Amino acid sequence: MTTWNNLDKLSSFKKLEALKTQVELKKVMSGANGAKRVAEYRVPMSNGLVYSYAAKQVDDKVVDALAELAKEAELTDKYAALYNGEVINTGEKRLVLHQLTRGQLGDDVVADGVNKREFYVKQQERIAEFANKVHAGEIVNEAGEKFTSVVQIGIGGSDLGPRAMYLALENWAKVNNTFKMEAHFISNVDPDDAAAVLKGVDVAHSIFILVSKSGTTLETLTNESFVKDALKNAGLDASKHMIAVTSETSPLAKSDDYLDAFFMDDYIGGRYSSTSSVGGAVLSLAFGPEVFARFLNGAAAEDALAKNEDIKKNPAMLDALIGVYERNVLGYETTAVLPYSQGLSRFPAHLQQLDMESNGKSVNRFGEKVNYVTGPVIFGEPGTNGQHSFYQLLHQGTNIIPLQFVGFKNSQMATDVVIENSTSQQKLCANVAAQIMAFACGKDDDNANKYFEGNRPSSIIVGDQLTPETLGALLAHFENKVMFQGFVWNVNSFDQEGVQLGKTLAKKVLAGDTEDALKAYADMLNI
Amino acid sequence: MTTWNNLDKLSSFKKLEALKTQVELKKVMSGANGAKRVAEYRVPMSNGLVYSYAAKQVDDKVVDALAELAKEAELTDKYAALYNGEVINTGEKRLVLHQLTRGQLGDDVVADGVNKREFYVKQQERIAEFANKVHAGEIVNEAGEKFTSVVQIGIGGSDLGPRAMYLALENWAKVNNTFKMEAHFISNVDPDDAAAVLKGVDVAHSIFILVSKSGTTLETLTNESFVKDALKNAGLDASKHMIAVTSETSPLAKSDDYLDAFFMDDYIGGRYSSTSSVGGAVLSLAFGPEVFARFLNGAAAEDALAKNEDIKKNPAMLDALIGVYERNVLGYETTAVLPYSQGLSRFPAHLQQLDMESNGKSVNRFGEKVNYVTGPVIFGEPGTNGQHSFYQLLHQGTNIIPLQFVGFKNSQMATDVVIENSTSQQKLCANVAAQIMAFACGKDDDNANKYFEGNRPSSIIVGDQLTPETLGALLAHFENKVMFQGFVWNVNSFDQEGVQLGKTLAKKVLAGDTEDALKAYADMLNI
Repeated sequence: MTTWNNLDKLSSFKKLEALKTQVELKKVMSGANGAKRVAEYRVPMSNGLVYSYAAKQVDDKVVDALAELAKEAELTDKYAALYNGEVINTGEKRLVLHQLTRGQLGDDVVADGVNKREFYVKQQERIAEFANKVHAGEIVNEAGEKFTSVVQIGIGGSDLGPRAMYLALENWAKVNNTFKMEAHFISNVDPDDAAAVLKGVDVAHSIFILVSKSGTTLETLTNESFVKDALKNAGLDASKHMIAVTSETSPLAKSDDYLDAFFMDDYIGGRYSSTSSVGGAVLSLAFGPEVFARFLNGAAAEDALAKNEDIKKNPAMLDALIGVYERNVLGYETTAVLPYSQGLSRFPAHLQQLDMESNGKSVNRFGEKVNYVTGPVIFGEPGTNGQHSFYQLLHQGTNIIPLQFVGFKNSQMATDVVIENSTSQQKLCANVAAQIMAFACGKDDDNANKYFEGNRPSSIIVGDQLTPETLGALLAHFENKVMFQGFVWNVNSFDQEGVQLGKTLAKKVLAGDTEDALKAYADMLNI
Repeated sequence: MTTWNNLDKLSSFKKLEALKTQVELKKVMSGANGAKRVAEYRVPMSNGLVYSYAAKQVDDKVVDALAELAKEAELTDKYAALYNGEVINTGEKRLVLHQLTRGQLGDDVVADGVNKREFYVKQQERIAEFANKVHAGEIVNEAGEKFTSVVQIGIGGSDLGPRAMYLALENWAKVNNTFKMEAHFISNVDPDDAAAVLKGVDVAHSIFILVSKSGTTLETLTNESFVKDALKNAGLDASKHMIAVTSETSPLAKSDDYLDAFFMDDYIGGRYSSTSSVGGAVLSLAFGPEVFARFLNGAAAEDALAKNEDIKKNPAMLDALIGVYERNVLGYETTAVLPYSQGLSRFPAHLQQLDMESNGKSVNRFGEKVNYVTGPVIFGEPGTNGQHSFYQLLHQGTNIIPLQFVGFKNSQMATDVVIENSTSQQKLCANVAAQIMAFACGKDDDNANKYFEGNRPSSIIVGDQLTPETLGALLAHFENKVMFQGFVWNVNSFDQEGVQLGKTLAKKVLAGDTEDALKAYADMLNI
């Protein structure tokens, strides 16, 4: 049995607090000692990735204290409880099984009379079979023609993760000859979103995926109706163009409105669903099921690493705890995610949901208010674009924002130019290396306007190339990081009660059941 | 002459500090008083827009104190100094003239022997003539065929603003029959960015715009070379496919490599350049010069409002000062920008640069370190998408994040569906109204997990529709807000010294001139 305590009840946390700001990056990252830190303060991840924390404000003493905290908070035991099928999502009384979509880390998990690993594998196989038939021209449109594009209809976790993964592999697939069809996404209830996407696709040759676990998400059902209108207006039978990804108990599961339905369940939260049928259907259709399988293998290998009790061999746990140190000891409120990879352009938007929706909580898993800060604000854009945008504040602003860089030695498309004796890829990599050092060490200057204080912490994950495997590993790393942080903060990272109130009030507005200020706002917006 | 003082030297600021957190939104926004606030706490903007601050943590006393601060800080005098041509960008010893690209607010400004308003108007006219010839098939490709798409090559302000504006008007132009050609953007030095864009466009019928004020931005020149290779490989003459937007003194200005060159100058910062030739060329080619002119008119009208000394008639100044109150008195570090409009999907990314690069500074305009916090972190995504992503933290997280909503009564494309008795547009608007009230008033609940503390401040800008005029007004509003905040914080909002150090170090890496930690990182990245 694991013990769930608040962070401020742990004696190791008190010890950690006593170590506040003893590490001056400007000093420790300079000279030979800096090189030594870069060589030593790194942890191998799976699939050739490396997590480097040399430019974080930690030293051996802090890392030892974090190791102690990991132990006292029983982090790997809690992870084991999760993957062995305990009810970790206590608020909603649910198991948390997204890791099972990509591997078996512990005991067989049986729920609702079903072996869940077998269930997820079966869905993956059913999707693979369906996708192969679409690609082979065995499943075709009414005119007997092949489908040439896929459109995902979903919001939140049914949109951000799958979209980010699609963008991350789109160009890789094109140059590796595994690209099968363009994918598009409709998410916003703003009618201009669906209208614009539908204007841009060939609906007669499009297959639409309706993604809603409950089958009741209003935005998604509204957009489904939008799509059905478009199909009807084009003289097409909507049921021959749509599939559903939903739970077996939802109204969508056995409806004649869809060519087929693929299943997820209540044990996979939306923001953790990229490796389930939610990501599986669209990614398998776009790139082929083998690419999706490789993505799952990448994630599974990273999940396995997160079992390691030794913090120096468990990059997700170490990353998580450094984040806790920055948040609860050093007092930093925001974290920027900065991938030096155009393919990861929407990866920060996915992490924003993953992290902020999981750990943006003020009560612990027993429903008691906590007395410390929890999840940070997450934002980010790809480098080098960000350098020409908000890095000014990161370098010289009045608040310190910890940074999480990601970089790859090789580009995805292998088309490059040499200008001033270097390739674009070399320039890209040179920039991220330079930024880490600029943030850490700063620069003295008599002109205060050109002075850089330094001591701005960052970590970097480096890989050979952004591939299905490294993408899966990256995704799993951050999922596990967020999970470990949730354990440390003693919050339930798997519910999202904070989204309910707005929904309830919006329904009231639409029903005309409003008064006072809410009515005044509704009037202002002409509802 | 205006007096430039630090914020903490102003007696009105001391007064403001004494008013800290006297306004409990949960209380003041409830019942009839809430409706009264919504009716009264609003300021008309130009082009039918309204700025509503009812759900901000202010009351008449706070607004009076802000008015006093505006006066003591001489905000409108400083604005007048700016548009009358004083050297407001003291660090770089430059005038700040972006408002002159869209109107004449004060005296004629003559610099370098040229009337600058006339200069900017002339560039706009030259662009209009060029765009009209392209649309009319008078300027064509080598095969005598019409150009069908335009690709902007630029980074930072040459990318984010123009891209956000293009996306904001793309669908509006399509349904209003002013859409001329698709625009694409290449910005990142990551070779996968240019390679992917070039794979997706018909280069033989594309016109490329190289945007670099100095003509020396490495990312942009590298991507130009990328494009030239692609044109060459397609058997095309690059000089027949490219135009330049640059300063008259840059090496690009009179080069045979371009069909034509259009000019900006040192008095327009990159992040303030959407209304100059930088935005003008791409937007005029994409939508026609009349649409660009309407966009400028929208901005000009909003600029004129910002001259008003009465804070209650000057929405940008009021918005700015409420932001200062939130940042320096209430202690909030981050602001979220949440447009309920799919067309504004990248507007937050533009504001992120505009705000963070302008005011993310620690020294005042005299190069002295300030003793207070300055520019906040800015992030955002469109609603309702954000609701299904990071709103959990905004509602129930441990930090308060002020929110800036934007909403429109009507969609852009006018295609909609009725589901459960309401249109998607009504659902969209109901959601933003509901969110404002949910954030302000929260909800009591015995279950702490379902309890919403409320007291989370927001403002909203409401308009009839996102059009060229309202987009221009929105852009100018935020530019002027950032400018006023910079005046209050006494920082130079128009330089960006914080981006230099990284550039210098990246060059060292590429030259192999590195040692110790920087070399270790370069090795890790295989440079």
